[in-house]
Amino acid sequence: MAEQIALRGRRAASVLKTLSTQERNHALSCISSTLSETKNEIIEANKLDLEAARKAGLSPSLIKRLDLTQGDKFDTMLEGIKDVQILPDPVGNITLATRLDLGLDLYRITCPIGVLLVIFEARPEVIANISALALKSGNAAILKGGKESTHTFKAMAHAVTKALAQTSVPADAIQLVTTRDEVSELLAQDEYIDLVIPRGSNELVRSIKNNTKIPVMGHADGICSIYLQSSIEPETAARVTVDSKTNYPAGCNAVETLLVDQGALNDHHNQAFKATILALLEAGVKLKVTPEISFAIGKFLESSSQYDSQIVPATELDFRTEFLELTIAVKAVASISDAITHINEHGSHHTDCILTKDQNAADLFLKGVESAGVYHNASTRFADGFRYGFGAEVGVSTGKLHARGPVGLEGLVGYQYNLRGAGQIAGDYLGAGGSKEFLHEEIHSDD
Amino acid sequence: MAEQIALRGRRAASVLKTLSTQERNHALSCISSTLSETKNEIIEANKLDLEAARKAGLSPSLIKRLDLTQGDKFDTMLEGIKDVQILPDPVGNITLATRLDLGLDLYRITCPIGVLLVIFEARPEVIANISALALKSGNAAILKGGKESTHTFKAMAHAVTKALAQTSVPADAIQLVTTRDEVSELLAQDEYIDLVIPRGSNELVRSIKNNTKIPVMGHADGICSIYLQSSIEPETAARVTVDSKTNYPAGCNAVETLLVDQGALNDHHNQAFKATILALLEAGVKLKVTPEISFAIGKFLESSSQYDSQIVPATELDFRTEFLELTIAVKAVASISDAITHINEHGSHHTDCILTKDQNAADLFLKGVESAGVYHNASTRFADGFRYGFGAEVGVSTGKLHARGPVGLEGLVGYQYNLRGAGQIAGDYLGAGGSKEFLHEEIHSDD
Repeated sequence: MAEQIALRGRRAASVLKTLSTQERNHALSCISSTLSETKNEIIEANKLDLEAARKAGLSPSLIKRLDLTQGDKFDTMLEGIKDVQILPDPVGNITLATRLDLGLDLYRITCPIGVLLVIFEARPEVIANISALALKSGNAAILKGGKESTHTFKAMAHAVTKALAQTSVPADAIQLVTTRDEVSELLAQDEYIDLVIPRGSNELVRSIKNNTKIPVMGHADGICSIYLQSSIEPETAARVTVDSKTNYPAGCNAVETLLVDQGALNDHHNQAFKATILALLEAGVKLKVTPEISFAIGKFLESSSQYDSQIVPATELDFRTEFLELTIAVKAVASISDAITHINEHGSHHTDCILTKDQNAADLFLKGVESAGVYHNASTRFADGFRYGFGAEVGVSTGKLHARGPVGLEGLVGYQYNLRGAGQIAGDYLGAGGSKEFLHEEIHSDD
Repeated sequence: MAEQIALRGRRAASVLKTLSTQERNHALSCISSTLSETKNEIIEANKLDLEAARKAGLSPSLIKRLDLTQGDKFDTMLEGIKDVQILPDPVGNITLATRLDLGLDLYRITCPIGVLLVIFEARPEVIANISALALKSGNAAILKGGKESTHTFKAMAHAVTKALAQTSVPADAIQLVTTRDEVSELLAQDEYIDLVIPRGSNELVRSIKNNTKIPVMGHADGICSIYLQSSIEPETAARVTVDSKTNYPAGCNAVETLLVDQGALNDHHNQAFKATILALLEAGVKLKVTPEISFAIGKFLESSSQYDSQIVPATELDFRTEFLELTIAVKAVASISDAITHINEHGSHHTDCILTKDQNAADLFLKGVESAGVYHNASTRFADGFRYGFGAEVGVSTGKLHARGPVGLEGLVGYQYNLRGAGQIAGDYLGAGGSKEFLHEEIHSDD
């Protein structure tokens, strides 16, 4: 069954790859209008899911994510499809053009990846979002939602199928799979599925990564760090750190670790450290601190202060933990090299920031840290596709190959080489038995 | 032990990432000169390996690959290091620059991947080649050679270590591992190793892919196809097909499958088919054919011809086989769509070619086939880093993400985002609680 689904996806991908920009954009507008026409049915289905979720005692945050009836969520979802539609086509762009010889031209051209498997939890609007992104980039997609959104999912699947029937996009280009026990079978279809995109909890992502040979684009943890040097203005240090921690603590781009340069603990240069710690405490953040940090805090905070209960000892594990709440682990580092080493070995290669007025230190940090995002004097919360100006976000990747960090449409395309010849053979050229030399001239677009 | 090796590689990568172009290039020239100075010791060690290989009865082709004493192989190896040294630096190139707001600039910059694990068989010159490519691109590398080259490997490892001691590149940037049973342990170090590059037989690559969670860049099979339409000139069809098959049959870019359009079997339009079949037979190629093809050949070749023994029936498996010898599987397809579907489902996404005079058919084929290389009227043998003009080849990748096809230095770098700010916080901007809007202006290099 899963193999059939995957094979159908693969066949649809072969057709989808040959469609024009207009044909793919047309499919997006059909999906948007069909969803709009069937809004009532979808909302009714969503209410059934919400009722079941409440009866089953699911968490309020999960119910909130599941709820399509809230405010303008449905219209925002439709708006999102149009936003993707007007983006430039990521497919068919020439990124390299070389004349190997007269009449033998090599082009590197962006192309769809093939078949995507998208596994997501509660949020039903992911269906519209991912269908739009996949078709825009010429990829077939298999969508697998969680059982808590089954009714909504079926209603939306029905609308998407109906919409595609009016277009040249094959029906199997977007397949919506509802039965529960198929995930592991789908994850085994590495012959037909090219990329898995998990949208959900850390546990979901980790379990998927451990159970498939297909490349996975996403992130399990977002363990972001801020490294504080004494030269930064106290007010800047406090604002950036508090924003990074408290603007949206459940976000993967929230800061989890504060590394304080030894020099910034020194009595005469601890203004930035002091301002940051006090601002975090005032914002209600719990600090998990090493003895050194505890001692340094003791110099400006009385032991019977109102913040006492917010300061607790840190364990080694705290520096490898994504708290997803108002908690931050704080430790001292002897030097910038130690800060870089700590981040490269404890972080999750998401986003890390240095707070300093020292430009040389900033440059070294930006060069040395291996993460997808390395920042100087800016909140880690800027790590986001919309803030980066990508228009649409597929997800955030903490892998080191292909797309990294916030991933826009570009992350859903790869490239292939097209060689256009006139019957040339390798045997005529040097290195393969012949005497002809290659030209290797860049082809300019006006040639 | 393997974990220590991997961790040392990771730490070296952190330092390597911060070195300048000059420092990395200097390391390459030190390696080249030290190898040159210790040529005698290396050649003596190589002779010990050759003697052992002959005693152990290893195959002549393996012994040939092992042999560094042949002709100018050693000097070619040194020349190769210099060739890499003069290539442009693949690291530190800005590929996107966006002003998010005044004083808040985002740059996407190419950067090393991190730690490479290179597993190779007989060829000892891979040590010099990969060390040069890895250091040039700022990556640490762990090299694991086969036991048949142990002596050569140790002598070369000694030279590389000696060379690096004169540079700012950490000694652990290139680690050469000789003990045999460590491969599986190294493949388990997915926390520290970022990419595995296998250089060897299909079996080696397949076994590695099945035994690691680390991304693998390479190819197991190279199942390339040619799709022949009736419109192509007979002479062109014959030349390109024979070159693709016979120029180097053991190469991964040699053709393995010939798909003949139904129309090209027709009595009145079979000139291209006939010329191709006769040329292949004359070149000593064995044809594995379907009944349809056998029947079509019977029309121009008498059943008692001298080529009788070269024509045998094909099985389904023959169309999924890399023969690596003078054998080709031949079948008919009803249409160009069937050709595309066959290739996307049976091929290995390496390189495929259409032979036709019909430009529309060529365009459709180039768009529809999912392989890394899709050619029109040119030999599949052109799929090669040097022929593409890349200057140096890391390998050939049949994956769909990251680097595809012949991979040059670019395949050893990824990118990261650098955000340079002045204390900005997300909470001041729309969408995260504030009212500021993003500029999202392209930064021009002269700003």
